[in-house]
Order: sequence, then C-alpha cells, then structure tokens
Amino acid sequence: MLFHVRMDVAVPHDIDPQERTRLVTTEKARALDLQRSGKWVHLWRVVGQYSNISVFEVDSGDELHEILWSLPLFPYMTITVTPLTEHPSALSANP
Amino acid sequence: MLFHVRMDVAVPHDIDPQERTRLVTTEKARALDLQRSGKWVHLWRVVGQYSNISVFEVDSGDELHEILWSLPLFPYMTITVTPLTEHPSALSANP
Amino acid sequence: MLFHVRMDVAVPHDIDPQERTRLVTTEKARALDLQRSGKWVHLWRVVGQYSNISVFEVDSGDELHEILWSLPLFPYMTITVTPLTEHPSALSANP
Amino acid sequence: MLFHVRMDVAVPHDIDPQERTRLVTTEKARALDLQRSGKWVHLWRVVGQYSNISVFEVDSGDELHEILWSLPLFPYMTITVTPLTEHPSALSANP
Amino acid sequence: MLFHVRMDVAVPHDIDPQERTRLVTTEKARALDLQRSGKWVHLWRVVGQYSNISVFEVDSGDELHEILWSLPLFPYMTITVTPLTEHPSALSANP
Amino acid sequence: MLFHVRMDVAVPHDIDPQERTRLVTTEKARALDLQRSGKWVHLWRVVGQYSNISVFEVDSGDELHEILWSLPLFPYMTITVTPLTEHPSALSANP
Amino acid sequence: MLFHVRMDVAVPHDIDPQERTRLVTTEKARALDLQRSGKWVHLWRVVGQYSNISVFEVDSGDELHEILWSLPLFPYMTITVTPLTEHPSALSANP
Amino acid sequence: MLFHVRMDVAVPHDIDPQERTRLVTTEKARALDLQRSGKWVHLWRVVGQYSNISVFEVDSGDELHEILWSLPLFPYMTITVTPLTEHPSALSANP
Amino acid sequence: MLFHVRMDVAVPHDIDPQERTRLVTTEKARALDLQRSGKWVHLWRVVGQYSNISVFEVDSGDELHEILWSLPLFPYMTITVTPLTEHPSALSANP
Amino acid sequence: MLFHVRMDVAVPHDIDPQERTRLVTTEKARALDLQRSGKWVHLWRVVGQYSNISVFEVDSGDELHEILWSLPLFPYMTITVTPLTEHPSALSANP
Repeated sequence: MLFHVRMDVAVPHDIDPQERTRLVTTEKARALDLQRSGKWVHLWRVVGQYSNISVFEVDSGDELHEILWSLPLFPYMTITVTPLTEHPSALSANP
Repeated sequence: MLFHVRMDVAVPHDIDPQERTRLVTTEKARALDLQRSGKWVHLWRVVGQYSNISVFEVDSGDELHEILWSLPLFPYMTITVTPLTEHPSALSANP
Repeated sequence: MLFHVRMDVAVPHDIDPQERTRLVTTEKARALDLQRSGKWVHLWRVVGQYSNISVFEVDSGDELHEILWSLPLFPYMTITVTPLTEHPSALSANP
Repeated sequence: MLFHVRMDVAVPHDIDPQERTRLVTTEKARALDLQRSGKWVHLWRVVGQYSNISVFEVDSGDELHEILWSLPLFPYMTITVTPLTEHPSALSANP
Repeated sequence: MLFHVRMDVAVPHDIDPQERTRLVTTEKARALDLQRSGKWVHLWRVVGQYSNISVFEVDSGDELHEILWSLPLFPYMTITVTPLTEHPSALSANP
Repeated sequence: MLFHVRMDVAVPHDIDPQERTRLVTTEKARALDLQRSGKWVHLWRVVGQYSNISVFEVDSGDELHEILWSLPLFPYMTITVTPLTEHPSALSANP
Repeated sequence: MLFHVRMDVAVPHDIDPQERTRLVTTEKARALDLQRSGKWVHLWRVVGQYSNISVFEVDSGDELHEILWSLPLFPYMTITVTPLTEHPSALSANP
Repeated sequence: MLFHVRMDVAVPHDIDPQERTRLVTTEKARALDLQRSGKWVHLWRVVGQYSNISVFEVDSGDELHEILWSLPLFPYMTITVTPLTEHPSALSANP
Repeated sequence: MLFHVRMDVAVPHDIDPQERTRLVTTEKARALDLQRSGKWVHLWRVVGQYSNISVFEVDSGDELHEILWSLPLFPYMTITVTPLTEHPSALSANP
Repeated sequence: MLFHVRMDVAVPHDIDPQERTRLVTTEKARALDLQRSGKWVHLWRVVGQYSNISVFEVDSGDELHEILWSLPLFPYMTITVTPLTEHPSALSANP
C-alpha cells in the first residue's frame, strides 16, 4: 500500500544542542534503513522549509503507524498522511 | 528541477457529456505522453478523491507552467505547486 | 485495513427530481450491500447535516478507492479519508 | 446517545518524565474501564498522529462531558465532539 | 439534552419567488410550533446576517436530527451543532 | 442589548496551583454575581471543552466590554462576541 | 453604540443589467440618507476590492440589523459586524 | 493616505510586571501624541478583546510602517493593514 | 508608494467565447499601457495557476484602486493588496 | 528561475539580546551579499509587519533551498515559496 506523508519539523529552539544532534543523527540513520528496506520509497526536502514530502510502501496502515511513531523526531513533527492508489492514467496502468 | 504538484479536479456537473469524455480522453493521452517523455515522473490517485498527486522533473518553472497550463482539464483544476530538492537523508545523497 | 471516512453530500438544488430519487435509491442499495459484505463496517449520520461518518475495513487503499469512486453520489460528495490503526489502549489490544 | 469524539494529544515536551508516565498509565486504565462499561464503544488510533478517533454511547451530553473532563490527559488534549444518529441506510435501520 | 445550533441560510437568488415565500412561511410556522412545544428553547437572529443562533432541548441527538432535517429551509442551510451541558458556575448549579 | 459570547479558556499548565485556584474561585463568584444581576443571562458549558457559551443582556457594548475585561480569567481566554437581535420567528415577536 | 461593519459585495455576473443599475443606485441613495442621519458614521472603500469598511452609531444592535437587512444589496453581501467601545488611549478618553 | 489597521495584543503572561506597566504607559503616551498630530485618526477598542481597530492618515506606507514599527507594544502585536480609499457613496464624494 | 498585488482570475466557464477573448485582449493592452507608464512595475505569472503577482508604484492608494477597479477582468478576479516599504537590508537602503 | 518568497520573522521574546543582535547583523550582511550577487533580486518590507516579500533568481530550487536554509534567521522564520514565470502580458514578453 502506498501512502503520501508530509512531515513538518519543529524542534524547540531551547533544546539541549547535544540532544538535538542525537535526534537528527538517529533520525537520519533510521530514514536510511527504511529506504534501504524498500518501505520509505521517496524522500524529498520541501524548498525553504524544515519539512519533507515522502511516499511509503507498506503492508498496512498499522505498519506505517509503527514506522512513523518510532521516528526519533516524531514528538517534534506535524505529520499528514494521505493514502494513494494507482492512477488510471499512470504508465503502470497503461502498459 | 523537481516539483510536487497536486491537482484537484472539479468538472461542472452540467457539462456536455461528449465534452467531458473528450476532456478526460485527451487529458489521459497527454499525461501518458508526458510520463513517457520523463517530465511527469510520478502520478498517483488520492484515495477517495478526484485528485492526483504528482512529481515533475523539468528544466525550469517556465517549462512546468507550460505543461500544466496546456493540460485539457486545466480550466477545471485547482493546482498546488511545491518545489522540491534532494533531502540530506535520502539514499541518493548518501551513496 | 481500517479507514475512517467522512462524506458530505451536496446534490445541486436544480437536479431533476427523478434523477435525485434514482441517486438516493441506488446509493442506499449499494451502502446496504457493502455493509452486508463486511466492507462498510460502520455508517452513522451526523446530527443536523447531510453527511455521514463511516468506517471501512478493506484489503487495501486501492479497494477503498474503488468502492468510494463507484458510489452513485460520489460526484456530489466531499470525502475525507483517515487511515486508522489499533489503539494501544483499546480492549482488543489488552485482552 | 452516540457521540463521535476526536482527541489530539499534545503533552508539553518539558513535562517531568515520571508525571508523563503517570498520565499515560492512568489514562490507559481509565480508557479500558470505560470500554468495559460499554460507554467508550470504539477507540482507534489515527495513523501517524498522537490522536484517537472514538465513539461513545452515553445517556446524555452531560455524561459525556463528565467522562471527557475527568480523563487524566484532558488538560493536554484538543477535543472535537460530533453528535451522531442512526443513518437511514445503515443495516440497523433496514432489518 | 441541550444543543446549541447555528443556522446560516443561503437561498439561491434565482429561486421562484412563490417558492421562496412558501419556504419562509412554512419555516416560520414550524419554528413557532417547535418553540411552543418546548423543544426549540431559544431563537435569536445574528445582527447583520441571514442566520440564527438557537438552543434546543430534546430527548436525544436523534430527535434533534429529525427536527433539523425536516425544516423547510434545511436544504439551504449550513448548520453547526454543539452539545451543551450545565456550567459549574451557572446559577442552576449553585442554588 | 443581547450579545452571544463564547469564551475558550487556556490557563498555562505551569501556573502556580494556588494562583489557578484563586482565578477559578474568583471567576465563579463573579459569574454568579453577574447572573444574579441579570446581566449574564445564560451560561452553558460546551461538552468536552474548557469553554462556555453565554448570552449577556447589557445596556451597551461598552458595558459588555467592562464586564468581560474585568473577568479574572480574561487574560487566559479567547473571546468571540456576536451581537444578537430578536428573530422574526421567535415567540416573543409573535405573541 | 458603535459597530464596525465590513461588507463584501458579490453581485452575480448574470444579473439583469437594469436590475444591477437599480440595486447600485438605490444602495447609494440609502447610504447617503443614513450618513446624513448620523447613523452611518464612516464609509470607506477597501483598495482593490468591491468592499467597504464602515462604522455605525446606532441605539442598539436591533437598529443596526434593521439598517443592514434593508440595504438593497443585502442579499449579495457578506457582512461582518464587530462591536466597538471607547479605547482607553483615545483622545476622547483623555481630554 | 488612509489605512485601516487592526492590532491584536498578546503580551506574554510571565513578563516582568514593571516592564508590562512601562510598555502600556509608553504605548498610551505614543498613541495620544500620534492622535494629536493627526496621523492616528481613529482608535477604537474591540469589545471583549485586547485589540484595537484604527484608521491612520499618513503621507505614505513608509510613514505608516515607521509609526507601527516604533510602537512600544509592536513586538507583542499581530497587525493587519488594509489600504482605504474614498467610497463613491460617501458624503465627501457627494457634496 | 509600493503595493504588492496578487490577482487570481476565475472567468466563468460558460461565458461567451467572444466576450472572453475581448476581456483577455483588452486586459493585456491595459496591462502593457500601465507597465509603460511606470505604474505597474512588475508582473509575474504564478506557475500552474491563472494568477499573477504584481508590484505597483503609484502616488496613493486612491490611484491604485482606480487602476485595479478599471481592469477589464476586475469583476472576475480575487485581489489581495499588501503595502510595501523599503527594507532596511535592501541595497537601496545601504548604498 | 524566479521564485517569490515571503518570510515572516518571529524571534522569541526571551532570546539573549546579544544573540538577537548577532542574528540581525549577520542576516543583514548575508542579504546584502546575496543582493549584490544578483540572486536576491527584490527585497521589500511588508508595512506593519516583521516580514519581507522577496524575489530570487537562481539556477534551481536546490540553490534557493541552500540560500534560505543558511540564512541566520532561518530557524525563526515561516517561509512561503511560490515559483514564478514570465507573464504573457509582461513588457518583456511583448517587446
């Protein structure tokens, strides 16, 4: 199943710098793992914003929730989830 | 350049059915052409809505505007354009 | 997979009364069929509004889209889809 | 009476960790009690969010207010209440 | 049970004048009946708007829905329903 | 003159508990006084929210402002004021 | 009593031109009368919009409603009413 | 040139009381000066809110910006500026 | 004086094609004249939308209103006007 | 490529004054450099707000993101990016 996910990050300005570094580092490692596993299919930065637009391919909404909930930056993100399906005009639907 | 584009379609209910068919058919042909050309990189349907979420790879904003403006359904669509860039945690940036 | 769906209906005032009757009748038959099949798990009316709040249990977002797109009233509805998952405090998760 | 309730939780980041644990634990115990009593009929997690969507069956709005107001996490939640009624196309209305 | 209801009326400009008169007249008769029955407890006009703010005292949300749904102007109104309960600082709660 | 007033309360979580108690106690006393004086005509709690919906009958907007501005919880409330007038379908207008 | 009123006008494009002229002419005559009577204290055009921002000085909200409701363009206007009072830093309050 | 300005004030609750007094006192003195100079033409309090609605008559947008930017409460205000012009139905345009 | 202006165009779909052509042609001629006169300083198309973002340099808000109000497409545009002033970090302010 | 960028600045009130001065000073130096390089083509202050409206001419969205992300005030700004293209009625398109 495909899900479109937008994550807007807002880490508090007064967070401990070491904690901030730890958060960002572990978040990056986790994002790379999930991309390598094929779950996190696309990951783009939004120009001019501390935000990403992503596409996930997972077995279920349950799996997507587990992934998002366990992201190190989860407590500091506003997340919007939009389920996707194949478009009838997509190349994949018109071989 | 990468652009994230969402298109929400609202064709008037009282449009001539033949005109509606012509619009949808030519829109589909145009979408397939643009996908084959590599400009329209991703095209997904939003679940439960007459909407798509797309990603375009074009040389410039000018080129994207020409593409969108010339879509047969353009007069009936609300379009939102979001410029994208490579995410520092994307696989492509961490080879 | 569980999806929360809200449908707000706005049939144009000047629609042909017979067409309106046909739409409402076939919509009701379809809703009953989908409930009997176990796909449309909950269907409630929102007090004071021509709207429903529903929960669907389907195999995928693709299946949900097919169901919603083929509803007779689809062209006259604004639909919001929210994916659900089991809550850690739900009875089902705490047997 | 049926009420649809959405609760979005936002516990401050700098809350004492023990207090956070206490809040979450007592909230869970209370939610389980209310489900066992038949008042809290449905409780789902929204995918990707610290939010739930619930349905309550209570004798009155007064009773619902007492329940929500006394939830341990109440001071940290944004709550939206929507009254529901039987849908004319629901199975229960078409036996 | 107490419900706060706001109704914003928007009758189309091109409606048949006789139909408009019929709608307004029957709506008024129905509103007076419901007030006399004690169901429609308060009915105020919002200054400068074709809107009312009302309070209903009914046995249930089901009853409120039946009342609102059967109002002659229902198809032309946007309705917002807010359940109310006794305020702990109200005179009635502090005899 | 009649005014519809909605007050949404948001006392900071980290306020001194004694100060919170003082605020709530003096607010309640003030609300009771104003109800007894006939100025604060209706006072309802919104189900599931730290909010009230009220109706005031005062000589002028000036008087209403003085009342609201001097409420102990005023600095912690978001207030919306809507002027009301007699509805042509109200019982009072149709004796 | 002072009220701040914003009126946004949206006359349908397909209205009969003579009716449009009649509406605009009678609206203007009514506005001049009300200004001469001292009820409509200020009347400004918003730059770039078919809108005005006004201040009324009337005996009550009832009187303001009667004035606004009887404006020829009332059916084509979105109106926002904001009650005003003397500002403690105004010259009038600091003679 | 005429400008309509709305200022919504939100001084933090935990500001030093002396600093708050200083801010409010200097703001008032500045407002009185600007009114006496003829720049700040109207200044009203919004009923029930820590907000004002004002009209400025200045030589240019530059001058208005300098005035607003140098108000003592500027860092704590949300400001909305709307340019005004003479209304064709105003008395001044119809001598 | 500098004003930032955004214009979103929405010509009705069922307008007479000749009238549409006339509107667009005269709008373009007018836009070119105003640019040559130095009043309409910048005119850009928003990518993917029937909208422009413009900057005007005019003597006053009155002059801007006359210009916008007399544009052929004015009745079909939603216009937002934002007054600008020199930025303290602009090159022009730091010669 | 042309991009329209709006930046709304909100530096926390309790920031260290020296840090605030450093931020504002380095931001100004950076803005001047980028203007001299021809990347930051226009920079205007919004009247009455701690905001700017800007136009950038860059090689790509990637370059714009790098510029914005590295601004000293970036962590304290809300940024909106709108891609622009040549307007068919612009002088440049009608030589």
